[in-house]
Amino acid sequence: MKNLNQLHKQLPLTVALKTDHVLIIDQTILPHKLKFLKLTKYADANFAIKEMKVRGAQAIGAVGAVGVWLASNRYRKNIPTEFYAYLQKIAKEIIKARPTAVNLAWGVKTILSDLDLTSVAKMKQIITLRYKNLLSQEVANNLKIGEYGNQLIKSGMTILTHCNAGSLSAIWFGTATAPIFQAVLAGKDIKVRLDETRPWLQGSRLTAWEMDRAGIDYTVNIDSASGYLMSHGLVDMVIVGADRIAANGDVANKIGTYPLALMAREHGIPFYVAAVSATIDFTLKTGSGIKIEERSGNEILRDIRYKYEPIAPRSAKSFNPVFDMTQASLITGIITEYGIFKPGDLKLISK
Amino acid sequence: MKNLNQLHKQLPLTVALKTDHVLIIDQTILPHKLKFLKLTKYADANFAIKEMKVRGAQAIGAVGAVGVWLASNRYRKNIPTEFYAYLQKIAKEIIKARPTAVNLAWGVKTILSDLDLTSVAKMKQIITLRYKNLLSQEVANNLKIGEYGNQLIKSGMTILTHCNAGSLSAIWFGTATAPIFQAVLAGKDIKVRLDETRPWLQGSRLTAWEMDRAGIDYTVNIDSASGYLMSHGLVDMVIVGADRIAANGDVANKIGTYPLALMAREHGIPFYVAAVSATIDFTLKTGSGIKIEERSGNEILRDIRYKYEPIAPRSAKSFNPVFDMTQASLITGIITEYGIFKPGDLKLISK
Repeated sequence: MKNLNQLHKQLPLTVALKTDHVLIIDQTILPHKLKFLKLTKYADANFAIKEMKVRGAQAIGAVGAVGVWLASNRYRKNIPTEFYAYLQKIAKEIIKARPTAVNLAWGVKTILSDLDLTSVAKMKQIITLRYKNLLSQEVANNLKIGEYGNQLIKSGMTILTHCNAGSLSAIWFGTATAPIFQAVLAGKDIKVRLDETRPWLQGSRLTAWEMDRAGIDYTVNIDSASGYLMSHGLVDMVIVGADRIAANGDVANKIGTYPLALMAREHGIPFYVAAVSATIDFTLKTGSGIKIEERSGNEILRDIRYKYEPIAPRSAKSFNPVFDMTQASLITGIITEYGIFKPGDLKLISK
Repeated sequence: MKNLNQLHKQLPLTVALKTDHVLIIDQTILPHKLKFLKLTKYADANFAIKEMKVRGAQAIGAVGAVGVWLASNRYRKNIPTEFYAYLQKIAKEIIKARPTAVNLAWGVKTILSDLDLTSVAKMKQIITLRYKNLLSQEVANNLKIGEYGNQLIKSGMTILTHCNAGSLSAIWFGTATAPIFQAVLAGKDIKVRLDETRPWLQGSRLTAWEMDRAGIDYTVNIDSASGYLMSHGLVDMVIVGADRIAANGDVANKIGTYPLALMAREHGIPFYVAAVSATIDFTLKTGSGIKIEERSGNEILRDIRYKYEPIAPRSAKSFNPVFDMTQASLITGIITEYGIFKPGDLKLISK
């Protein structure tokens, strides 16, 4: 991988805008098959979000916005207020598909806020423009995150990441993967370690697929290997993504992030979070206000990949929170499109 | 479960001595089928160890000893030196089946050391006696561990354990599970949390099966949930087993133990190791001398439960160390058949 063009050839867009439709990568069948889903009506977008064909904060936000755009394309009458009410209804339905995904609401809102309700044609034009902007701005932000993050990386380093905060979680290029891609583009010789990330194995399935496509040297380990790896000097830096960041720098991210951060501090290994600034929720003073989604215990007790066949005894109960909270004090820096900030300095962004 | 007899009915012996053969539980098909394997000749024992039909420190040691006993039963001539040489050959072969399992060598050695080489009949008698002793002594040790450990447990507590240091890893009753069983037998109302323990899922398959059999309230979680669980006050105590303990109290145990211990310290949660004193290697000053076994990356990259079908991209590499090292400073106490010791006080046992 020598330049961005080559990376574009090797690693397709997760969400690709076409004239009258959108192509997304079906993430449920990766890494063994690369298949694109064609979204032509808003119900397609809804389905893709609900069935986890698309996942990851930025990607979900973008596909939510796709839904509104597709719905707007298909409206044939010329009654602005009816049109607006219709779009609002669609938006609500889409947000319901994954109720805890903040970026989903953000994507929909970005498209629909403060519309001039005088003409359907004008409204459609603005929605299309905003939608195109949203996609290209997100990619630009991720490239920026990569540029800033790359300044932290030296040739010879081994970087550990958790889950998938990669290109597949975004429109392209990812957040936690962005510094890695930029470092390789800059000719640095680096290695990547991936937590497999139970129960959905986004690490060994999705981030591994991205590394494979980009031709980057990577090695998969189980999530609880952090102690072994760090005590044996096998990790030089950790970069993870974020699902939501509080104003004080506390970070909610995929479960397992907090133990990783604690182990990194124990061994003096820098621990970075990479996220677009939209992930920061300035209305939350600290992370303790962030509600953690719990999912079905069957994701742990049964085999997701094989018709949910039971692994544990049939009587077993399971507790399956999806995220955990990493205190700001464990985080070396937060890499955003505006630069790298100490967790306590995030307020500089809001200004 | 009201008393030991009832527990015996619900939870069968992992290694059960019969007149001329041994029955072991086939651990590869648990928890959905309980099947016993009949070991009648030493090759059966060898096969069971090699194919992971039996696993866990004490259980492997016992089945290694079974092999020697079965071989001795089948020797028909009356030449003591030939008999002894034959048993030594068998012993070497058995130890080779899992070269890093220290208890395997210990089990074989316990049976064969300092034999009086004057009569085959006498040798057979002593071997049988030693073998019976080994099995009953191991169970007695585990019951003792349970009694000591139970003193630490209060009604209402939730105890977290990792992997399977349960009845299935022993002849019966287990080590990390022993205090749990004794607490329940004493009428205490406790809850148990189980790390599923990738990649072999000994927690959600084996320890869950034991809890289910014993009728104990248990909940399974992914291995990296420790941060969420402990920061939300959902764990009152951790008890794990040990594969090898150094003289200074450093503990080698299933990978993931060290991150768990670090998180427990961060939240002021007591962290105990339960093990028979034979697990302590007084020849090792610290844990840094313990060699950590690495297993095939396919255990992580492929689906063990489904014909090793690939999970990750086919090009993926994986790093799969089986144990990690927990420093003595993170361990509240080590529960043995001689009592509970601070890690630094283990030398009291050797005296």
